[in-house]
Amino acid sequence: MSDHATTDEEAVRGLIEAWAEAVRRKDVEAILQHHAADLVMFDVPPPFQIRGLADYRKSWELFFSWSADPVPYEIHSLSITSGADVAFAVATMGCAEPGPDNEHKPLDFRLTIGLRKIEGEWVVTHEHHSIPAVD
Amino acid sequence: MSDHATTDEEAVRGLIEAWAEAVRRKDVEAILQHHAADLVMFDVPPPFQIRGLADYRKSWELFFSWSADPVPYEIHSLSITSGADVAFAVATMGCAEPGPDNEHKPLDFRLTIGLRKIEGEWVVTHEHHSIPAVD
Repeated sequence: MSDHATTDEEAVRGLIEAWAEAVRRKDVEAILQHHAADLVMFDVPPPFQIRGLADYRKSWELFFSWSADPVPYEIHSLSITSGADVAFAVATMGCAEPGPDNEHKPLDFRLTIGLRKIEGEWVVTHEHHSIPAVD
Repeated sequence: MSDHATTDEEAVRGLIEAWAEAVRRKDVEAILQHHAADLVMFDVPPPFQIRGLADYRKSWELFFSWSADPVPYEIHSLSITSGADVAFAVATMGCAEPGPDNEHKPLDFRLTIGLRKIEGEWVVTHEHHSIPAVD
């Protein structure tokens, strides 16, 4: 792998780790900081798809109203495939809702993130969060 | 967009359209034709994740045992972001299971595909298929 590719992969990894950290802090401005105005999100709960930063922001308000607090939002695995100007990341993640007796009720989910480099900065243009369907 | 980028986007689009057509034909060899040996799949039904072509193949056997026949597998929307050697695609899709009275029971789902160009050929290294979670 070239130095260039290593640097891009590290930049994408740093962006995603900082984003997850912002979720844990419930810092919505930081969560949105590197996201495209026209991003497309496929989220765990309905609706079927979310387009644009205003509705992406609302998805986090919904998440924080559901989540355990302090917010668990852990990266369990993260694999990044990066070119010079397009990248995607494949992750397994963990969050949790409040359970009985102040115990957390953990929820593992799958996450794919798509990014483009725009004017030298990596920007998230797509997020796909899901859990397997139940019968 | 450069000619190079247009050509890569067209190649990825053609690969995905041919893959969906192979699903409709139930042609498993053609479905697997442009997929990496170590691909990671997040599928609609459990398990949580699938790794490698052998288990990816099994996911299609499960799908065909569930699906209406002839197999509907339609691309409703497809957006491709392609660099010179990394690309991802964001799609909304439709399939269906058999319903009562020979009516199909449609199921719309979300699909993200990650690809790398390896020795000049685009190869799928990741697929993420999902539906929104129900409460």
